[in-house]
Amino acid sequence: MSVLVASMYDPDGWTRHVRAALPEHRVMATNRFGEFEGAAEDLAAVEHVLAWKPRQELLDRLPALKAIFSLGAGVDHLMDLPRLPNVPVVRIVDPDLTARMTEYVVWQVLHHHRMGAAYQRQQATRQWRDLRQPAARHVTVGLMGLGVLGTSAAEALLKIGFRVAGWSRTPKELPGVRTFSGESERDAFLAETDILVALLPLTPETTHILNRSLFAKLRRPGPLGGPVVINAGRGGSQNESDILAALRDGTLRGASLDVFEREPLPSESPLWNAPNLVVTPHVAAVSDPAALAPAIAGQIRAFERGEPLQNVVDIRRGY
Amino acid sequence: MSVLVASMYDPDGWTRHVRAALPEHRVMATNRFGEFEGAAEDLAAVEHVLAWKPRQELLDRLPALKAIFSLGAGVDHLMDLPRLPNVPVVRIVDPDLTARMTEYVVWQVLHHHRMGAAYQRQQATRQWRDLRQPAARHVTVGLMGLGVLGTSAAEALLKIGFRVAGWSRTPKELPGVRTFSGESERDAFLAETDILVALLPLTPETTHILNRSLFAKLRRPGPLGGPVVINAGRGGSQNESDILAALRDGTLRGASLDVFEREPLPSESPLWNAPNLVVTPHVAAVSDPAALAPAIAGQIRAFERGEPLQNVVDIRRGY
Repeated sequence: MSVLVASMYDPDGWTRHVRAALPEHRVMATNRFGEFEGAAEDLAAVEHVLAWKPRQELLDRLPALKAIFSLGAGVDHLMDLPRLPNVPVVRIVDPDLTARMTEYVVWQVLHHHRMGAAYQRQQATRQWRDLRQPAARHVTVGLMGLGVLGTSAAEALLKIGFRVAGWSRTPKELPGVRTFSGESERDAFLAETDILVALLPLTPETTHILNRSLFAKLRRPGPLGGPVVINAGRGGSQNESDILAALRDGTLRGASLDVFEREPLPSESPLWNAPNLVVTPHVAAVSDPAALAPAIAGQIRAFERGEPLQNVVDIRRGY
Repeated sequence: MSVLVASMYDPDGWTRHVRAALPEHRVMATNRFGEFEGAAEDLAAVEHVLAWKPRQELLDRLPALKAIFSLGAGVDHLMDLPRLPNVPVVRIVDPDLTARMTEYVVWQVLHHHRMGAAYQRQQATRQWRDLRQPAARHVTVGLMGLGVLGTSAAEALLKIGFRVAGWSRTPKELPGVRTFSGESERDAFLAETDILVALLPLTPETTHILNRSLFAKLRRPGPLGGPVVINAGRGGSQNESDILAALRDGTLRGASLDVFEREPLPSESPLWNAPNLVVTPHVAAVSDPAALAPAIAGQIRAFERGEPLQNVVDIRRGY
């Protein structure tokens, strides 16, 4: 039984940990350009691919393929392929990844809520001055996307004392969270949101959903003196020139972006030094091979025993 | 029944909210220098003082005094007086203050855990590079002080996924927290702490407790590449020249200080631009008169009905 690791990110780390987790399997790997340097017969035997941004021509050469396991929470890197093999696609849902995303969301929410940028400026100029600080219970964090990641972030934010609202495509209920769903309830959700956190999959519906017209519907001025947007989902969900303009003209008081339309963010991008914008290099929730390889190995073994796969992507929906 | 507001911080705000909360009382106030400009007979009738850094000569003129209510969580501003009136001293224990302190602790813990300073430098120089990030479950936050504030911070940190240890003068138990107590267990507590959070009252025992010899006992290098210290208690607990030296020579990887030996922090202090040090101007948990005045008013009314006071300070212990 052969497994192929086809990752454009840390292929050596992934391969080492997958080999350790599946000692009874033959584990092959592409190079760091996503190319397979072995024989065609070896590819012909591959039943499972663990993939991050795999090459189309590689997937075309896998006649025995039974399932694709995405090595990140998002699967748009697979959905965007011209010819996705007709096998189940499995998303990563892992406590490690979820915990890291929750850390990032809470960190950036608190950075804006506690006026981190203003205090940094004061420190740099040696100014001792306290700023008016609303209590968390007067600030609403609005989560777009209430999957596993959104649910975990909501629980941590509630524990710290924030009001939490949530919006999702289909109706959901979460204890302590005011939930909204679908197009019809989106404006009501935005109207009570002070800090918007986007944890959305990238689909045709979510492409450029974070744009000027949406920003204008957030609560203002609100307890923070203006709304804040945090995107830790996919760069394709945001219109970056709209974000830049909104930060410059005050439509947004601040923002944190971990993802970008083009990654790495080009060094000439004006986002690097936009006012009150935190830029991080797509590190909100980095997949850790040591934590994730055993979980994927467990899924592969269960599948081979005839048990159903967990977290299979709905191809029509795109996530 | 007369009440005197004697606050060196926001006396007008306090007086307004105390008046609103105690409409049946006569509420008098000092000016912003802590001086009382009214008649001696008025002072003679005062039964309750709500105080922040009150003047000794004012307290000397209150023959009818029955209780002192501190307007901040710390009471060292009262304990340090040459002649503290022999009446009960009440500390503020308020959900609003506790929640604000928990926000601050979680914010600064995440800032260091998620390498905020390094990512800020990268953003300033337009560098896209991910840094090795340990999971929170491999990082131990050690709380010194397990009162109401420490307990609340512990719960929020556990929810985010950190390992939490706690040290207190007397033995305490907290679900999910490895607890240590007294001098004899302090070194063991420090030896497993990666991020030390001090939430200590200022007493003779805690004066300069955050010093070079303590820093040297923290776990190293640990998952973050070196230990971090956060002090949101009292500036008198820290030896600032030791902190500066420890940051410069790498004994500490980072620190956050909200409190200082001298406040405001003098503009010539080298702490303002010490390496990987976050300076905030004593704002971790600012007492909000709107939230706290009604709670104190409730205590005063209960006391006048003959009920016992809550959160009375143990004068010998100093907190």
